[in-house]
Amino acid sequence: MKIALLNGPNLNLLGLREPEIYGGETLKDVENLLKEKIVASGNNIELICYQSNSEGDLIDFIQQSKAQGIKYIIFNPGAYTHTSIALHDAISGVQANVVEVHISNIHKREEYRRNSYIAPVAMGQIVGFGIAGYGMALDYILGLESKNDK
Amino acid sequence: MKIALLNGPNLNLLGLREPEIYGGETLKDVENLLKEKIVASGNNIELICYQSNSEGDLIDFIQQSKAQGIKYIIFNPGAYTHTSIALHDAISGVQANVVEVHISNIHKREEYRRNSYIAPVAMGQIVGFGIAGYGMALDYILGLESKNDK
Amino acid sequence: MKIALLNGPNLNLLGLREPEIYGGETLKDVENLLKEKIVASGNNIELICYQSNSEGDLIDFIQQSKAQGIKYIIFNPGAYTHTSIALHDAISGVQANVVEVHISNIHKREEYRRNSYIAPVAMGQIVGFGIAGYGMALDYILGLESKNDK
Amino acid sequence: MKIALLNGPNLNLLGLREPEIYGGETLKDVENLLKEKIVASGNNIELICYQSNSEGDLIDFIQQSKAQGIKYIIFNPGAYTHTSIALHDAISGVQANVVEVHISNIHKREEYRRNSYIAPVAMGQIVGFGIAGYGMALDYILGLESKNDK
Amino acid sequence: MKIALLNGPNLNLLGLREPEIYGGETLKDVENLLKEKIVASGNNIELICYQSNSEGDLIDFIQQSKAQGIKYIIFNPGAYTHTSIALHDAISGVQANVVEVHISNIHKREEYRRNSYIAPVAMGQIVGFGIAGYGMALDYILGLESKNDK
Amino acid sequence: MKIALLNGPNLNLLGLREPEIYGGETLKDVENLLKEKIVASGNNIELICYQSNSEGDLIDFIQQSKAQGIKYIIFNPGAYTHTSIALHDAISGVQANVVEVHISNIHKREEYRRNSYIAPVAMGQIVGFGIAGYGMALDYILGLESKNDK
Amino acid sequence: MKIALLNGPNLNLLGLREPEIYGGETLKDVENLLKEKIVASGNNIELICYQSNSEGDLIDFIQQSKAQGIKYIIFNPGAYTHTSIALHDAISGVQANVVEVHISNIHKREEYRRNSYIAPVAMGQIVGFGIAGYGMALDYILGLESKNDK
Amino acid sequence: MKIALLNGPNLNLLGLREPEIYGGETLKDVENLLKEKIVASGNNIELICYQSNSEGDLIDFIQQSKAQGIKYIIFNPGAYTHTSIALHDAISGVQANVVEVHISNIHKREEYRRNSYIAPVAMGQIVGFGIAGYGMALDYILGLESKNDK
Amino acid sequence: MKIALLNGPNLNLLGLREPEIYGGETLKDVENLLKEKIVASGNNIELICYQSNSEGDLIDFIQQSKAQGIKYIIFNPGAYTHTSIALHDAISGVQANVVEVHISNIHKREEYRRNSYIAPVAMGQIVGFGIAGYGMALDYILGLESKNDK
Amino acid sequence: MKIALLNGPNLNLLGLREPEIYGGETLKDVENLLKEKIVASGNNIELICYQSNSEGDLIDFIQQSKAQGIKYIIFNPGAYTHTSIALHDAISGVQANVVEVHISNIHKREEYRRNSYIAPVAMGQIVGFGIAGYGMALDYILGLESKNDK
Amino acid sequence: MKIALLNGPNLNLLGLREPEIYGGETLKDVENLLKEKIVASGNNIELICYQSNSEGDLIDFIQQSKAQGIKYIIFNPGAYTHTSIALHDAISGVQANVVEVHISNIHKREEYRRNSYIAPVAMGQIVGFGIAGYGMALDYILGLESKNDK
Amino acid sequence: MKIALLNGPNLNLLGLREPEIYGGETLKDVENLLKEKIVASGNNIELICYQSNSEGDLIDFIQQSKAQGIKYIIFNPGAYTHTSIALHDAISGVQANVVEVHISNIHKREEYRRNSYIAPVAMGQIVGFGIAGYGMALDYILGLESKNDK
Repeated sequence: MKIALLNGPNLNLLGLREPEIYGGETLKDVENLLKEKIVASGNNIELICYQSNSEGDLIDFIQQSKAQGIKYIIFNPGAYTHTSIALHDAISGVQANVVEVHISNIHKREEYRRNSYIAPVAMGQIVGFGIAGYGMALDYILGLESKNDK
Repeated sequence: MKIALLNGPNLNLLGLREPEIYGGETLKDVENLLKEKIVASGNNIELICYQSNSEGDLIDFIQQSKAQGIKYIIFNPGAYTHTSIALHDAISGVQANVVEVHISNIHKREEYRRNSYIAPVAMGQIVGFGIAGYGMALDYILGLESKNDK
Repeated sequence: MKIALLNGPNLNLLGLREPEIYGGETLKDVENLLKEKIVASGNNIELICYQSNSEGDLIDFIQQSKAQGIKYIIFNPGAYTHTSIALHDAISGVQANVVEVHISNIHKREEYRRNSYIAPVAMGQIVGFGIAGYGMALDYILGLESKNDK
Repeated sequence: MKIALLNGPNLNLLGLREPEIYGGETLKDVENLLKEKIVASGNNIELICYQSNSEGDLIDFIQQSKAQGIKYIIFNPGAYTHTSIALHDAISGVQANVVEVHISNIHKREEYRRNSYIAPVAMGQIVGFGIAGYGMALDYILGLESKNDK
Repeated sequence: MKIALLNGPNLNLLGLREPEIYGGETLKDVENLLKEKIVASGNNIELICYQSNSEGDLIDFIQQSKAQGIKYIIFNPGAYTHTSIALHDAISGVQANVVEVHISNIHKREEYRRNSYIAPVAMGQIVGFGIAGYGMALDYILGLESKNDK
Repeated sequence: MKIALLNGPNLNLLGLREPEIYGGETLKDVENLLKEKIVASGNNIELICYQSNSEGDLIDFIQQSKAQGIKYIIFNPGAYTHTSIALHDAISGVQANVVEVHISNIHKREEYRRNSYIAPVAMGQIVGFGIAGYGMALDYILGLESKNDK
Repeated sequence: MKIALLNGPNLNLLGLREPEIYGGETLKDVENLLKEKIVASGNNIELICYQSNSEGDLIDFIQQSKAQGIKYIIFNPGAYTHTSIALHDAISGVQANVVEVHISNIHKREEYRRNSYIAPVAMGQIVGFGIAGYGMALDYILGLESKNDK
Repeated sequence: MKIALLNGPNLNLLGLREPEIYGGETLKDVENLLKEKIVASGNNIELICYQSNSEGDLIDFIQQSKAQGIKYIIFNPGAYTHTSIALHDAISGVQANVVEVHISNIHKREEYRRNSYIAPVAMGQIVGFGIAGYGMALDYILGLESKNDK
Repeated sequence: MKIALLNGPNLNLLGLREPEIYGGETLKDVENLLKEKIVASGNNIELICYQSNSEGDLIDFIQQSKAQGIKYIIFNPGAYTHTSIALHDAISGVQANVVEVHISNIHKREEYRRNSYIAPVAMGQIVGFGIAGYGMALDYILGLESKNDK
Repeated sequence: MKIALLNGPNLNLLGLREPEIYGGETLKDVENLLKEKIVASGNNIELICYQSNSEGDLIDFIQQSKAQGIKYIIFNPGAYTHTSIALHDAISGVQANVVEVHISNIHKREEYRRNSYIAPVAMGQIVGFGIAGYGMALDYILGLESKNDK
Repeated sequence: MKIALLNGPNLNLLGLREPEIYGGETLKDVENLLKEKIVASGNNIELICYQSNSEGDLIDFIQQSKAQGIKYIIFNPGAYTHTSIALHDAISGVQANVVEVHISNIHKREEYRRNSYIAPVAMGQIVGFGIAGYGMALDYILGLESKNDK
Repeated sequence: MKIALLNGPNLNLLGLREPEIYGGETLKDVENLLKEKIVASGNNIELICYQSNSEGDLIDFIQQSKAQGIKYIIFNPGAYTHTSIALHDAISGVQANVVEVHISNIHKREEYRRNSYIAPVAMGQIVGFGIAGYGMALDYILGLESKNDK
């Protein structure tokens, strides 16, 4: 099985950018965190990691994910969360299984960060736990799979 | 004369994506539909087909259309219809002759799909007739040209 | 088969009223345009033409259309587009097959002209192509019928 | 010259209806008031009086006014002031010279009575002077005509 | 004593129109229901039944009701509920005793059906009980009368 | 069969509180009114009466109503009508059959009293008939039951 | 009797400022117009003329008007119409008899010019008749006085 | 260490209420899920379970949690999420460490369910994963503690 | 004479909770402050102190205050200020004499804290003076009483 | 120490203007009230009284207050409360210690009177106690000073 | 040539007021900055400096500027930016050439500071560069003049 | 030192596109303007020029600017100004020193062009001076640097 770790605009800055909001860990640390969890779980899962600042590239990735055999996408859409109906449509268009993750607590910030176009087409949304949120998303998916197995 | 068939985000999924909303025909079928109409009309028209999920690429295409001798653009901007002022500016910037097409009836769906930034700079807007809407756009253009000829 | 050409308030002024917005052709010209198209299509179709400035009369017409054997209505509701929930209800009440047509580009005008109570219950909407829009509506219907015939 | 006194819904109740808001004088009194003013002015003016509760009838009247040689309309649109875009369009459609009159002070009442769809296409608006407002409208028209005469 | 059963736009379609929303009974059934209740009550009451799709006609009816000796009006204003300030004014203008009835639960439907211009000038409002609501209105009136008798 | 008469905050003040709005009859009078109607109908129905100023207690009552064999609830939610999503959820959670009653005409009062969170999950809503509204609710239920019996 | 002609900010520019909106006549012309009307009417009326760009000065003037024996104020509040609650309070504070005049049709201009804080405390409002509006205001007052005399 | 599982209004109905939205598992199942996780983690943690339909009781619980030695609260505030500023204040008042959990995807439902007064004072928010969300909250807390231990 | 000191949700935390906003004094300190003032004034006044986190309990208290001989209520409704129409109704229902007090300056905080449902039915409102505000409320009441005595 | 009593537009009308709203006492009475309180307190305080209808003059006064040795300002900004950002800036600009006073209960009046630009930069706000509110403001200041003295 | 440096309310406090927002330099420093620039440019330009806290005085100044031979106005309207339509009208009334300057970044502050009534009638707007913004405005004017010279 | 000239969507059309709004000069002219200014200033500054129609590319550029040694960015974000939260985040993410420039006066155009997501994270904003605005931005930066040098 393949799982994607998909990150939107400015998340490549993680660890460098405003550490008081986003913490000091990098996107590489997130990848390692997830890989360790996969190993620990004993599953045979390939983790595909992709980040882009381009809305179009993120849409392309989601569209192609099915063909690539990706079953779940752990997705932090960054600022496109609040402005991109096109990403919403891409997810519903290919019926992607998306878990939406936000590092910071978007409900404590500017009003315009409280709306998510992604949430209505996501399996669920995890907000405000720092990079631990990515791990929670993965744990949820692993749990779902192990339940399906039974 | 050249006419462009321009499609925005997620329209490459046509026929695959949510057929209960968008029908079972693909973008290839749309192209064939238009080409057959052109042949049937006996006009010497080249149809340029382009689809992109990237707002920037769509802007590039519209800007360059004039230089390429494209006289009309049949444009389904997908979800960018509702969010892209930059596409609006590209159309007015090069005074492109755009016919806006939407496959689904955007007035029956989410509230945020009812606004179009493209419509105020389009020649007209065709909404809700399925892929037949593309054909209607072409017929309108052919009619306009034959009137101009006289 | 019968098709109705139904026009709402002030469309009897067509050709007389504000020609810089609505063009110089009259409602009679629209009727002739549609009749010629019908003849050219070789179909045996009766065109019923009706215009009224009264919301109630338009509702009456739509309600009675089914009983009269009218299968499709090409409808320009004029200003009632933006204010009449009762027309919306008449259409959904008798499940009328309505194609909504607007001569001018309502998206370039006052904000209050952008909302349509008719669109959510119409088959589709054609906006801004001048009186050619009526012809496009008819062509769509003819195409639909010829497809059904097969 | 002909001038019309046009009254919208419920103004036939004048004098009967809510006298604490609208006063005790009837529509007949208004007509007499205007006729006396015309006689006193020494002008050869015919006053055409019409009242209807039907939006459609009011639109019909306005459309036909030009053909009937009516040069000015003193118009109290009643509650349609706040809801009728179709009346707005009728006035601009035939370029009618309309003076808008309201008996009560609409700015002291419900919020939804403060908007007027008629005012943007009227020559001017007179609000809150009781039935004297009709006389003020006529005086304005007489003054305009006598100025034009010179 | 006279009581009116007054129905607005599209209620003549009752029983025919969207039975999943409005039920299978016709306006004739409503009339019979009310007549039976009147007979059963032993009162000497005349029931005046009127339906119109025209806002103006409904205003006319309400204005003339007093002169006709109608003491109460059971009124389902249909879609004009949400758009007609003129009907509001007619009711307050003649101080009509109106009981407002809606067959469907307007609070479960589109947002724009939740507002009523009639309610503030009605004695009360009955919403969502199907055609039984008309009977409830009549029972209320009969109760009021029998209380007044004592 | 059991029917509940459920009243929300401040309705225990009935008859004492603002009699110009709510009338001079007490909640005890309402109970007697309903009991008399039940006796008169000849049905074997137990009336459970409960009033509370506490949102939580009202939720508890609704949740437990099913277990207690209560088939219908005549519910005046008082001011919680406009603020309590939790009561909405309790009703839909146990699929309670609720008839919503308001004594005063909430559409004549402050704007914030016009919204009801209860109405979308109620069988219907009765507004503005004073305490007679409770009786109308009961009559509706009795009618429904007698229809079911046949 | 004394009548005041009171003008707010920028009205001293009349005739100089944007003549396509406000016409070519000056405030002096307005004064003369009113004085001629007074002479023609044969009344013994003193006209007090005052203009100020200062909100505070206008409030002072209105407050002192009663003490000065001014019975009516013909008031064009200019842009303070839309922003000054303090002028509203001054008028209601001394129960001044104010006729509000606007030269241009404020309903054809920016949205924020449509609201008037003055109108709810004015006797009436005259909008869009150019400087003739001042004369209409005076005529109304003269008519009122002559009626009171009888 | 003590952790609380706190549930708001209607969550006692879990498993019984609208299973198509909330699933078939009960609140008891949630408790067992969490207890198993605690046992599996080898931590010495006491789980305090509390549910109430009363806003006041939930506030009391949160206020007293500190004194009771509760370090974290896994909190599903149900419908009070969207209406209770008082719960917001209770959490910030005692600086409670709250993880907010919602079983259903509140972003797919009514508009008024999208706002959370709790989120701005929560450590984070977990939405839409069914009862698994409670487990994710606990795992997050356990991870945090084990990190703090190091 | 009896006066009540009534405090709403979270005010039992006073002195403990967010001292940078609410100061370091406890509710006990407030009670002592008021009692000292009463003693100093030489009046024979009983101070009834009550705090609750439950909206229902606060309503109960207000309703029963009259029967208990409480003539004035010094009321800090806490967060219920902004959400409770039911408390508004309780106060107007028993015509309670309420002085509304807020410790913090609610106009410097979140937008949703600026609205008060209590203020329109209070004698007056005191905002932002810390716990001194309670004393100001008492002084006002004492002054009112001594004036009444004369 | 100096304290200013500063009053905004129309407060010079106090006692004369709308006594049913503002009471029958004059600004002079307010001054005497404050002076008596100062004498009674035994403090050596100079009271500077100023009223103006001009926004600019009020700004000037506030700016110069510090230089004049004024330590506190008891300020009733009248209608400028709701419209003047410039007064807000003057207060924060010189860090003036302002107690905001309103005689009437602004929460019972027009919606636009509920907003205060002054409150966010005031020490506190006193609303609705009539002219007693000025005295409460002074008492608060005296209390603050005597506390500081200790 | 004459150029005016015009400053609105509270800008006389510059350097004294909230230096963390507005910096430590005074209005005198601004004047010197501009004078030095003029000298350095070698132009024969007179700089007229005026500041007022009064909206009326600022309107007077702008109106008279043309007569005084002032060709350009560098204008910081302070808080009147957001509230004064009258200043907007003064500028358009005399067709003044205005460059709008704001010292602080108004887009980082309260929402109500983001709107400018001045900007639509200004040549351009400079925001957020501290007092350097005044210099930029002057440089722009000098550049424009030197271009015109050629 | 390096300075970037960064231009967003459609600015490559400068000089070609709608010259009545944007003037006749091209982006090349802008570059030359800035280069001449740099030469004239005698500074050793490299100007990096980049334009893209792609939001993602612009984000990439801003992110990499620091690594490339770019100290300031003169940025005209075109239509992304009004829609891109992602560009806002990129600027704050790398703490870029951005001067925002708009050629046209965005406050004279459509309402949706008045909001800027960039302004709150920019050093300042220059609006409406044509291409001269770019030069003003550069002059500001040069002035800042020369001040820092001292």
